[in-house]
Amino acid sequence: MDNIKKYIIGKPFETNAVIERLSVSEELPSRIEFSSDKGVLKYEMGKEDRIYGLGEAVRGINKRGWIYETYCSDDPMHTETKRSLYGAHPFIVVDGRETFGLFVDYPDKVTFDIGYSDIDILEITVKSPNYCLYVIEGETPLDIVRSFRRLIGKSYIAPYWAFGFQQSRWSYYTSDDVQKIIDGYRNNDMPLDAVYLDIDYMDSFKDFTVSEERFPDFEKFVEKAKQQHIHLVPIIDAGVKIEEDYGIYTEGRDNGYFCKDKDGNDFVAAVWPGKVCFPDFLNREASHWFGMKYKTLIDKGIDGFWNDMNEPAIFYSEEGLEKALDKISEYKGKNIGIYDYFGLKDTVLGLSNSFDDYSSMYHNADGEIVCHNGVHNLYGFNMTKSASEAFKQIAPDKNILLFSRASYIGMHRYGGIWTGDNQSWWSHIKLNLQMLPSLNMCGYLYTGADLVGFGDNSTEELALRWLALGVFNPLMRNHSALGTKDQEFFRYKNKGIFRNLLKIRYALIPYLYSEYRKAVENDDMMFKPLAFEYRDDKYAKAVEDQLLLGESLMIAPVYEPNAIGRYVYLPEDMLMVRFKSDCEYECEKKIKGHHFIEIPVTDVVVFVRKGRELPIVKAGMYTDEIDLATIKYIRNKDDVISAYELITE
Amino acid sequence: MDNIKKYIIGKPFETNAVIERLSVSEELPSRIEFSSDKGVLKYEMGKEDRIYGLGEAVRGINKRGWIYETYCSDDPMHTETKRSLYGAHPFIVVDGRETFGLFVDYPDKVTFDIGYSDIDILEITVKSPNYCLYVIEGETPLDIVRSFRRLIGKSYIAPYWAFGFQQSRWSYYTSDDVQKIIDGYRNNDMPLDAVYLDIDYMDSFKDFTVSEERFPDFEKFVEKAKQQHIHLVPIIDAGVKIEEDYGIYTEGRDNGYFCKDKDGNDFVAAVWPGKVCFPDFLNREASHWFGMKYKTLIDKGIDGFWNDMNEPAIFYSEEGLEKALDKISEYKGKNIGIYDYFGLKDTVLGLSNSFDDYSSMYHNADGEIVCHNGVHNLYGFNMTKSASEAFKQIAPDKNILLFSRASYIGMHRYGGIWTGDNQSWWSHIKLNLQMLPSLNMCGYLYTGADLVGFGDNSTEELALRWLALGVFNPLMRNHSALGTKDQEFFRYKNKGIFRNLLKIRYALIPYLYSEYRKAVENDDMMFKPLAFEYRDDKYAKAVEDQLLLGESLMIAPVYEPNAIGRYVYLPEDMLMVRFKSDCEYECEKKIKGHHFIEIPVTDVVVFVRKGRELPIVKAGMYTDEIDLATIKYIRNKDDVISAYELITE
Repeated sequence: MDNIKKYIIGKPFETNAVIERLSVSEELPSRIEFSSDKGVLKYEMGKEDRIYGLGEAVRGINKRGWIYETYCSDDPMHTETKRSLYGAHPFIVVDGRETFGLFVDYPDKVTFDIGYSDIDILEITVKSPNYCLYVIEGETPLDIVRSFRRLIGKSYIAPYWAFGFQQSRWSYYTSDDVQKIIDGYRNNDMPLDAVYLDIDYMDSFKDFTVSEERFPDFEKFVEKAKQQHIHLVPIIDAGVKIEEDYGIYTEGRDNGYFCKDKDGNDFVAAVWPGKVCFPDFLNREASHWFGMKYKTLIDKGIDGFWNDMNEPAIFYSEEGLEKALDKISEYKGKNIGIYDYFGLKDTVLGLSNSFDDYSSMYHNADGEIVCHNGVHNLYGFNMTKSASEAFKQIAPDKNILLFSRASYIGMHRYGGIWTGDNQSWWSHIKLNLQMLPSLNMCGYLYTGADLVGFGDNSTEELALRWLALGVFNPLMRNHSALGTKDQEFFRYKNKGIFRNLLKIRYALIPYLYSEYRKAVENDDMMFKPLAFEYRDDKYAKAVEDQLLLGESLMIAPVYEPNAIGRYVYLPEDMLMVRFKSDCEYECEKKIKGHHFIEIPVTDVVVFVRKGRELPIVKAGMYTDEIDLATIKYIRNKDDVISAYELITE
Repeated sequence: MDNIKKYIIGKPFETNAVIERLSVSEELPSRIEFSSDKGVLKYEMGKEDRIYGLGEAVRGINKRGWIYETYCSDDPMHTETKRSLYGAHPFIVVDGRETFGLFVDYPDKVTFDIGYSDIDILEITVKSPNYCLYVIEGETPLDIVRSFRRLIGKSYIAPYWAFGFQQSRWSYYTSDDVQKIIDGYRNNDMPLDAVYLDIDYMDSFKDFTVSEERFPDFEKFVEKAKQQHIHLVPIIDAGVKIEEDYGIYTEGRDNGYFCKDKDGNDFVAAVWPGKVCFPDFLNREASHWFGMKYKTLIDKGIDGFWNDMNEPAIFYSEEGLEKALDKISEYKGKNIGIYDYFGLKDTVLGLSNSFDDYSSMYHNADGEIVCHNGVHNLYGFNMTKSASEAFKQIAPDKNILLFSRASYIGMHRYGGIWTGDNQSWWSHIKLNLQMLPSLNMCGYLYTGADLVGFGDNSTEELALRWLALGVFNPLMRNHSALGTKDQEFFRYKNKGIFRNLLKIRYALIPYLYSEYRKAVENDDMMFKPLAFEYRDDKYAKAVEDQLLLGESLMIAPVYEPNAIGRYVYLPEDMLMVRFKSDCEYECEKKIKGHHFIEIPVTDVVVFVRKGRELPIVKAGMYTDEIDLATIKYIRNKDDVISAYELITE
């Protein structure tokens, strides 16, 4: 890996982000200006430079023009001025006057000011000047990404069924509720492979329990679902409820497996179950202990999990709440002024995910006591690693689905991620699209956004348009929050259109799965910006709402309400394929250049690249029903011998 | 006005929205289905129907696909799923299978469910079935709008200087601060006509006072500014501070001019000054009294005002706060659960603009005691009417600038509006564009959004792109909130580009002002959707990001970061004019159809319609410096005799 230079600044904490141990370069890279303590890195961008990367972040594919912080954050309002989301991915590629990559391997906040304070300056600030810096050289951004990916190791491989469509909601409260969802899809002839169990399947939000009352005979229910070709995917939260007769709590407590406060007592905070302790995932023993707990559910037939609240999210700590209530009680009976009122608001809103709480939480990293504040981004990573490693022991022959909300570079080896609590906003359809290549750069290949949006209320048109992008998301899951409008696809008026769109997904699964596996194998990106392939095309470079998907396709979904179509830029002659139902489609040759393409809500339009071909099959009602014998190839080339490499399970 | 049918349902409260007294039709319109109490109106939309109107609202020009509530709301987070903003404008035009307009004249919440609950149904719900319904027939949406506008009366005419560029910030604290802003523009050769005084110019936020300490010898300072061709525009808030030695408070109290609580005592709530009373603008005497208070500042040379916080915004009421603190104190010392925690959050966040408070506030509407809850949307309207009517007495020969944050239909006769506390979001550039025609439909011609965004932090590129749209906003004001990055244009790095963009505005002022005056005179729209003019063009109908501006222009600004240009649809052959500096430009003929137009941040691109011409002048440093002798015409026609009607002050 001669094209990667590693620098050690200060005394970095080992994050385990990388798998390759490189020799350390002594002299700092000359193109970057370092502050005296080396905590600030400056680079003057060329006027036309584009900056890619940062994985899970707001804004466009080109990240230039904003300030980002890699800091795992439980914040569902993903407006364009947010700096952090759930994942922390401090890897960027500068492409322009010079082309190179930077990975700042540091487990807490790194600030990337990319032309925010000064339109021409890229300034990276590491919270504490103790980190590893990797500078990656390469001809093209894709070369750099592939080098980076070799550095951080191969991506997790999700099971084939996890490419089927999956339905979620916070919450389906009972097994009857879940069965109604299965019936809703099956009775409407709409494909489905999985239903999710959000926090309410548990007994009082206790990890690895199942409510006897609401899910009686759970094992049998899981089996019954399986007979209907439905996988049930329960959520696992980071916090362990404090309850005397809850074995996981008492075991964790008695063995010292929880994070501590400064005095060495268990650190206590409140999340869904009320007061909880947090397993210390930076501790090998604690991590192993928690991971093995998944066995309880695996033994009941479960073969998929999503790890949540593992930033970790904290609603409040005992101490924080007490202080807040003390402060508020001072206002009582007084003629409080306006600034007191704002203070009151800030006090209450500041209770959650507070810096003070993270600073009062300690890990025992295999002997070394470290404050959580300083290693914050490693928590979700190690929770997911803990599960992944345990799975190998619990069920070595099974491929268990696993993905997480919080993540850091390196976690892609152990599971996927979903992009957290988005909203039913049109702008989040575009954000879904724009995040895919950035996530791929960081190794997250099994990923997707909550289709139709988690928070806020959706409309039927939004659902249709989001689904038409959703058919390409590797993790294709519809998920919505408590209190929002129901948004399962069978509930809408135009069922026929939803059915067709879902079937188009299933017709594409062999292609999507093959391209996914190839991307894993080759440390490649499944979704690429056009700029990564059409290197000398000024229009391609600026395209922010189209993606290359694998070797054959370009996609260009509609993400605006009341649209009759959209503009599409073709960087070369392509074959436009308009799917109207699963196996029926129309083809039309389109020449290189700008086009307005009419795309009614009924259609999915894709573009097959020159000399490439797209395999499609007859859709099934679930992945196992897909019959590869029905495969046919839509070709944009003259020779008839197919060279397409299909990868099956 | 034979094409307008008026229906009276129940016992409406007189809003004074309309100026024409029409005879009342007895039989309800057959195309609409009414609920038994007539509070719900249903209409089945055709698949292709487009719905226009609603004035100040989120989302596109075509309002289809969301649910809106006309309810004056102080809410700065204008995400796409908000239902209400500051203005309440219950007028829509249905355009498709049938074409007609509906004005629901009701002074409190009206809900417009436009394909939100059911993709095909328009459902209007009036909070109480006591309202006037106007059904307006016409060949085209524009015909309907013009009829509606005749019904509600001629729009307010702003002074010529108010078409110059204006700078604001919350706050310029001292006269020195203001002078620095003036110098910043003047020293950088950047045009400027006005500087705004936000709440901190006052003594303790008391209306019609000026801080002696921070603005010593205010009258002289106003005069000094005027010598620099700068108008100072102070803010006036709705609430009057309760303070024993503050004459306006004691006068209002002693004369019973304030809104009351249910027991007839003055209704007390807290806003910026702390505890305040609200002048009862529904009471003629109180309204006249408050209006005449503007004289204090007019006498000091002030010739422009912005009325704020007049939804009215309420931070909290005494009673509300007491209840909240009582509730919170119950949590103290208890092991509170998760739902208590959410309760705590909701309690604090629910303090502001609460239904309970509005329900405890009463007006004396010239003898009739009415609860504020029921006439909510009339408050800002009548505050502005109060000022406007007083101005005629105070300074009958002056045209004083006046605009407001809250508004209702009809207020356009008395002043303009700005679109309230937006954010430094790219999506709000587009929202700025999309609101302009909707506001025009409701008579708001002197209007604009806070350029570069009020809340949140901006970047230089955002400022450049927003300014390139801002040059067309009649009210062209840069405004930003406390705690955000400075965003006066002279502060940025690329001063030359900002200077040029500002000068382009000044080069266009004769055209903009003329088109504005014509729109007032003819009850016309200054900004029109393409769909309003190119009636048989399916692409034009769907265009959501271009506008016709007056008789000659089409505009198509860039509203995406890192863009090299944008797609533009030309509904006919047009002349593309690319301004590179105030008086220098390049022209290029473009044929009807779809185009990708490269637009660097340095340029303003406009399109001159077939057979039309665009007058431009040499830019001045302020409106008074514009010399009409420098006028020239950019023509997209063969005959050389200009028919363009120029309107000067």
